Amino acid sequence: MKISVKVPATAANLGPGFDCLGVALPIFNTITIEETVLPGTGIEINAIKDETNIEDVILDHTPMDENSLIYKAVELLYNSIGQSPSELKITVQTQIPITRGLGSSASVIVGGLLAANELLGHPADEQALLSLAAELEGHPDNTTPAITGGMVISSQEDDGSVVYSKLDWPSEWNITVCVPDFELSTDISRSVLPKDVPLEDAVFNLKRFGMFVQAVNTRDINLMKRALQDKLHQPYRMKLVPGLERIIDNLKHEEDVFGCVLSGSGPTIIVISLKSAVEKIKSTVKETWKDMNVKVNIMTLPVEQDGAQVLSND
Amino acid sequence: MKISVKVPATAANLGPGFDCLGVALPIFNTITIEETVLPGTGIEINAIKDETNIEDVILDHTPMDENSLIYKAVELLYNSIGQSPSELKITVQTQIPITRGLGSSASVIVGGLLAANELLGHPADEQALLSLAAELEGHPDNTTPAITGGMVISSQEDDGSVVYSKLDWPSEWNITVCVPDFELSTDISRSVLPKDVPLEDAVFNLKRFGMFVQAVNTRDINLMKRALQDKLHQPYRMKLVPGLERIIDNLKHEEDVFGCVLSGSGPTIIVISLKSAVEKIKSTVKETWKDMNVKVNIMTLPVEQDGAQVLSND
Repeated sequence: MKISVKVPATAANLGPGFDCLGVALPIFNTITIEETVLPGTGIEINAIKDETNIEDVILDHTPMDENSLIYKAVELLYNSIGQSPSELKITVQTQIPITRGLGSSASVIVGGLLAANELLGHPADEQALLSLAAELEGHPDNTTPAITGGMVISSQEDDGSVVYSKLDWPSEWNITVCVPDFELSTDISRSVLPKDVPLEDAVFNLKRFGMFVQAVNTRDINLMKRALQDKLHQPYRMKLVPGLERIIDNLKHEEDVFGCVLSGSGPTIIVISLKSAVEKIKSTVKETWKDMNVKVNIMTLPVEQDGAQVLSND
Repeated sequence: MKISVKVPATAANLGPGFDCLGVALPIFNTITIEETVLPGTGIEINAIKDETNIEDVILDHTPMDENSLIYKAVELLYNSIGQSPSELKITVQTQIPITRGLGSSASVIVGGLLAANELLGHPADEQALLSLAAELEGHPDNTTPAITGGMVISSQEDDGSVVYSKLDWPSEWNITVCVPDFELSTDISRSVLPKDVPLEDAVFNLKRFGMFVQAVNTRDINLMKRALQDKLHQPYRMKLVPGLERIIDNLKHEEDVFGCVLSGSGPTIIVISLKSAVEKIKSTVKETWKDMNVKVNIMTLPVEQDGAQVLSND
């Protein structure tokens, strides 16, 4: 039996929504799991670079054995029904660049869980998949939109369950994703965050995130311009993402630009704007990073409304 | 010339929205300012208890001279156009109980500003009034809804301007206001808050406040039940509001109760529910506080959609 699952990239945080907001984007990893007879450990994992992957390096940091995240996801689902996986051939066809803040780890976790769930005859429902994925990833803000599609607020509760709600993002609000050619591991990017933050910074983000959700619901551009700010993670990560401060600064007076934010823990930068500003954003980001010898791949993408999908089942 | 302004009570915070959310309620203070010839300092301030005021004590903590908050508000508006007030008789007819977390200070600030603005021929527009009021109060979450009416997210920005957005609260979501017969000064209630908070508590509130705004927009009761929680102020204020923890606990399994939160810095408790739960809420709150020798006045109130209004102008 051979199962393929297509999982979208995700951008989390988006400014004020640190660790609670994420959006699916139409860049995909395809995870294929095949039950087969293999020698040795019984596990073979391969990564194939999709021709549309903008990166040169693919998954070369990722262990290709029982320690890989994708295998852990498969194992977690098997274990949840008291079984263990054996003799699997796993292939990851990658479009999503790694260590760029676009949810590549969430995509392989979700892909592994969904493929295993399919192989085992659907023992896990959506809620179980959401919980297992968030547990393995450590937070639900990438894994939830990777499963559900769309832009979602999500929270993993004390009982392990994941509560989420989809926001109805206006299609005319363009999401321009700027992926630089340097890497930033989530571990490093998380290590610079403080354990405690000033109460006034917490309140700063509360207001902005409330405005963000309200602005999406009411299509209020001026409110969204106020909302796209953050004091809980971006200030600490500025030094890890050379160019972020300058790009924010260079775009702040553009009429139709709502704001620039980190995608996840970076280094990818996302700019929210009207369509009229997209060309200016592209040239500004390119030039700013060019001055710092950074190459960048820029894509203006719609929200991916579908979550992970099983492609074939034979 | 004699001006009367009617200003609604306000409840701020409402659980997750610490220092950024507030709602106007139909309990009113009426502030009357009269230009007259008076002996001495030229200022006379009187407070009159409205017969519907649920309190016995009225404004007896408030200085009735140039140091009163209402006089400071009047003076601030005069000063903003380079003038000084003189020979004023100010009367406050109070329905809003003081030191209970229902925005009585915001009401006299807003009443003073609006009456002075009327006396001076409207030199200040809404934005100027919002800024002056938030400046004097220290935060905009009570003063903004006192001026605009409704339930509002608001933020005073670095340049002093106040950004706000009204939420469209569902009229079938009942707001039950439980006012105990003990006082709690905002200064004391604010002094117990820490300067720094754990980042995970900041994230906890971010998620809840995002859910709150989303739940109001989408009429999602289950989401609102998840949203009405807080880790930024209520845990620190629990010890100042005996009964809060027990009331939350006693109501947590009621099907149609969404949640119990502090109004502002307390001690008033607000319970959000469907209408079907209101009687049960009233009896539970009364009994819980009765066991602790606390009397309570309970009102189920709609959102007051109108903000402060000039009543007469002669």
